[in-house]
Amino acid sequence: MPYEFKAVRRVEFSETDMAGIVHYSNFFRYMETAEHAFFRSLGYSVSMDQFDPPLGWPRVHASCDYRQPLRFEDEVEIHLLIREKKSKSFTYLFKFRKLDKSGGDPVEIARGQLTVVCVTRNAAGKMTAVNIPHAFADLIEVAPAEWLA
Amino acid sequence: MPYEFKAVRRVEFSETDMAGIVHYSNFFRYMETAEHAFFRSLGYSVSMDQFDPPLGWPRVHASCDYRQPLRFEDEVEIHLLIREKKSKSFTYLFKFRKLDKSGGDPVEIARGQLTVVCVTRNAAGKMTAVNIPHAFADLIEVAPAEWLA
Amino acid sequence: MPYEFKAVRRVEFSETDMAGIVHYSNFFRYMETAEHAFFRSLGYSVSMDQFDPPLGWPRVHASCDYRQPLRFEDEVEIHLLIREKKSKSFTYLFKFRKLDKSGGDPVEIARGQLTVVCVTRNAAGKMTAVNIPHAFADLIEVAPAEWLA
Amino acid sequence: MPYEFKAVRRVEFSETDMAGIVHYSNFFRYMETAEHAFFRSLGYSVSMDQFDPPLGWPRVHASCDYRQPLRFEDEVEIHLLIREKKSKSFTYLFKFRKLDKSGGDPVEIARGQLTVVCVTRNAAGKMTAVNIPHAFADLIEVAPAEWLA
Repeated sequence: MPYEFKAVRRVEFSETDMAGIVHYSNFFRYMETAEHAFFRSLGYSVSMDQFDPPLGWPRVHASCDYRQPLRFEDEVEIHLLIREKKSKSFTYLFKFRKLDKSGGDPVEIARGQLTVVCVTRNAAGKMTAVNIPHAFADLIEVAPAEWLA
Repeated sequence: MPYEFKAVRRVEFSETDMAGIVHYSNFFRYMETAEHAFFRSLGYSVSMDQFDPPLGWPRVHASCDYRQPLRFEDEVEIHLLIREKKSKSFTYLFKFRKLDKSGGDPVEIARGQLTVVCVTRNAAGKMTAVNIPHAFADLIEVAPAEWLA
Repeated sequence: MPYEFKAVRRVEFSETDMAGIVHYSNFFRYMETAEHAFFRSLGYSVSMDQFDPPLGWPRVHASCDYRQPLRFEDEVEIHLLIREKKSKSFTYLFKFRKLDKSGGDPVEIARGQLTVVCVTRNAAGKMTAVNIPHAFADLIEVAPAEWLA
Repeated sequence: MPYEFKAVRRVEFSETDMAGIVHYSNFFRYMETAEHAFFRSLGYSVSMDQFDPPLGWPRVHASCDYRQPLRFEDEVEIHLLIREKKSKSFTYLFKFRKLDKSGGDPVEIARGQLTVVCVTRNAAGKMTAVNIPHAFADLIEVAPAEWLA
């Protein structure tokens, strides 16, 4: 069963700031890029309209530790790993690695974490946590401990 | 009847790019800042849930001409003017003026335009243009020609 | 000589707004995605540090006409065409086409335009328009009239 | 000596996503809004060009815990508190409170943390951590423990 997924992005000009590096908030957008591609790789969208009622995945925790900056046109690999799986939530670990333009080994430049909860909404938009549907939860397992180190 | 509105914003760090200036796409966000504050000044929200069915205002045209850049912590006045008023749409003119930190006259640094259409949506999200409700349209008039020059 | 380039993007969750569609300002980011990939396809970066002094490409005009919305996970083709080539500036036309998930023909959903100027900066950041270097300008030509229709 | 600062923002349309709430990455932009206004309240800019060499403040850690969502036109108070002060870095705590439109008590809806490091850059843009200048560090102290609870 899958417990990891890799996505690659190239840094866009509009993601940089006047310090010449990717604005730190954009790492949280990059995490989602990998999460949503992971969902698609399993045949699902994060916007789960095929369930009744439809399910969503708001974030209850997000964090990132930054070691080195990313710059315009850098290519970054976002390595998603399942750190924790509960009845109503997942916790992902993300390892960001900058790809070496000369073909050397990628360098880990940041590491992030997200906890997302499976919810339904009532007509007023109020969200309630619900069990992750088995059809989806059964596709995913927690990564081996050595992958999470 | 109102035909103009002024909003002021201070440039945020995350709105700049590696060229050290506000990314050009953010001027289109600034236009909305003024538009939505204008709606609020009339007692309305751009998200018109008080009508049945609810109304929205998607954009069908957007443009901007840039003369001078904006930088971090600059204060910019966004002057909205009603350029055109039709049964189902408005066209706004926006004059961007950078406020002078030493108290001199503001300098026009960009000029933009937006055309927005009043729509309803069906259950599938498909949008249909509808007449702007009189209660709202009657509050607004086109600016005098000399204001639009 | 090249006068066109196509890039494809998939709409990200963070690019949508509460109306359930891509925020209109993001189309201007998508234009840059195509422009910068076009530069790379010619062996250049839009951040031209190989010239002395380094060159940049600020925008002096941007516009977009919207016909249909884009939604989360839609794939959009951004077709860049050279509309005008002057000694110090380019004007691009962009045709946005939504790719059909069932394999049908792509549908044009928006059309944009950007005029960019080649500049140098002095130590204080002040920009001056300069001639586009021949090495770069000679790589690019204006698209045939029928492509621009 | 100051150890706290409060800023207020109104949620913008472009900060929401298709779930109808503020995209979680924008809370990290809101933290900066408060941080930079705090710097200005002390007579400084986060872009410290008055020092030679100029100083910058990259982030090495960022986190946020979300309890309730924010929606379009909500007003949110961002309460910055100094949690830790070291020779080369600060750690801020941020309490996000949604202002009640009917005049009730604000409700804490999220809590974040940022660790920022004082750096210089060499000509190639490489950053080195340096001591925070006394003139600035001496203006700031750690908040009392009960404020940080």
